[in-house]
Amino acid sequence: MFGTPVIVTMISGGIIEDALPRWSPIMRTIDFWYEFASTYSYVSAMRITQAAAKAGVAVRWRPFLLGPIFKELGWNDSPFNIYAAKGQYMWRDLARVCDDEGLPLALPPVRFPQNGLKAARLALVGVTAGWTPAFTRGVFMASYAKQRDIADDETLRDILEQCSVDPDPAFEAATSPANKEALFAQTADAKARGIFGAPSFTVGEELFWGNDRLEAAIAWAKA
Amino acid sequence: MFGTPVIVTMISGGIIEDALPRWSPIMRTIDFWYEFASTYSYVSAMRITQAAAKAGVAVRWRPFLLGPIFKELGWNDSPFNIYAAKGQYMWRDLARVCDDEGLPLALPPVRFPQNGLKAARLALVGVTAGWTPAFTRGVFMASYAKQRDIADDETLRDILEQCSVDPDPAFEAATSPANKEALFAQTADAKARGIFGAPSFTVGEELFWGNDRLEAAIAWAKA
Repeated sequence: MFGTPVIVTMISGGIIEDALPRWSPIMRTIDFWYEFASTYSYVSAMRITQAAAKAGVAVRWRPFLLGPIFKELGWNDSPFNIYAAKGQYMWRDLARVCDDEGLPLALPPVRFPQNGLKAARLALVGVTAGWTPAFTRGVFMASYAKQRDIADDETLRDILEQCSVDPDPAFEAATSPANKEALFAQTADAKARGIFGAPSFTVGEELFWGNDRLEAAIAWAKA
Repeated sequence: MFGTPVIVTMISGGIIEDALPRWSPIMRTIDFWYEFASTYSYVSAMRITQAAAKAGVAVRWRPFLLGPIFKELGWNDSPFNIYAAKGQYMWRDLARVCDDEGLPLALPPVRFPQNGLKAARLALVGVTAGWTPAFTRGVFMASYAKQRDIADDETLRDILEQCSVDPDPAFEAATSPANKEALFAQTADAKARGIFGAPSFTVGEELFWGNDRLEAAIAWAKA
C-alpha cells in the first residue's frame, strides 16, 4: 500500500498548511475558486485552511479570472462600482466581517478592482510546489491590509520571497504560454460549473457562492 | 409609570407573535425590509420572529417595493432572471437553505417574480392592528410553499381569513390613496437608507443585506 503524499508548510501565522493529503481520490475535497480583485475572496482565503482542516476536508486552491465572466454578463467593471448602493454597502459589510474574523483591513485599496492577472498566473504556478495558499494570502493581505499594488512586480516579488520562493523562475513559469493557457482553462472550467462570482466553492457538482457559504460547502464535502 | 403596550397574537406554529413591546423608544428594534417577490425574504420572514425574540429584540415589519429601486439600477426584471447563472444558483441555494431551516418549498412558483404590490399594500394596512407578521408569512407560504398566485384577490382573501382579518375592509384600506402613498413613502425611505435588495435589516443607520445577515443585525441591535 502506498502512502498518500503530504505537503506540509509552516507559515508565519502558525497554521500548518496542507497538512492534509491533497489530490487523493478518496479524500474529501473542496475546490476554492477565488479572484484576487474580489474583496470577500480575501476573507475566505484567510480562513479556509483552518475551517477545512477542522472538518478533515482537503482544499484545492483554484485561482481564476472573473473579468471574462463579468464581461459576458455585460459588466466592464466590478458590480460594486457599477451599482453604487451595492458598493457602498459592501465596503461597510466587509469592515464588519473582517472585524468579526479578526482580519486586518486598510481601506481604500490602491484601486478597485485591482488587476490580479499576474498574481493569478503566479498562484497557478505554485499549485504543484505547494506554495499557492501562502502566496494567495500574501497577495490578499497586500491588497486589503497593506494598500499595495498587486499588479506591481515588486509587490509580487516581495510576497514570493516571504513564501521562500525564488521570484525569477516563478515569474518565468507564470508568463509561459502553457501557464497563461492553464489560467484561461481554469476560468473556462469555472464558467462551465456555473460560477458567476467569487469566492465560490465546489464539491463535485455542488456550487456554493460567497464567503458566507464556506461552512455549508465544507459540511457538504463531509457528508 | 405607564406600562408599555404589548400585542400578543398566537399563530398556528405556536410562536408567540409580538410578545415584545413594539414602538417603544427604549426597546431595541430591528427593521425588517422585505419584498414579496424576493425568495430569501421568505426565509427571513419565517424565522425572524423567533430569532429576534430569543435575543430580546423587537421587529418592525416594513414591506416595500423593489421594482422602483431595481428600475433605477437599469433592471426591468429580477436580476435572477437577467443573469441566468445567478438565477440557477439561487434556486439551488434556496432549496438547500430551506432544507436547513426546515421550511417547505414548492418550485417553481406560479411565476417569478410574482407581483407583490397588492400583498405589500395589505401588509402595510395590518401594521397598526398587528396582523402584518402572520399575513406576511401567509403570503410567502402561498408563493413558495403552495404555488399560489399572490396577485390574485382570492389568494389574499384566504390568507386574511386565516389571520382572522375581515377581507373587505382590509382591501378597502389597502387601496385607499393614503395607503398607496404610504407604500411609496416606505419604498422611498428604503432607497434613502441605501437599500438595494431584499431582505434587508436596519438598526438605526446600520444596514444589513440578505437572509444571511439576520443574526448579525440582531446582534447589532442588542449591542
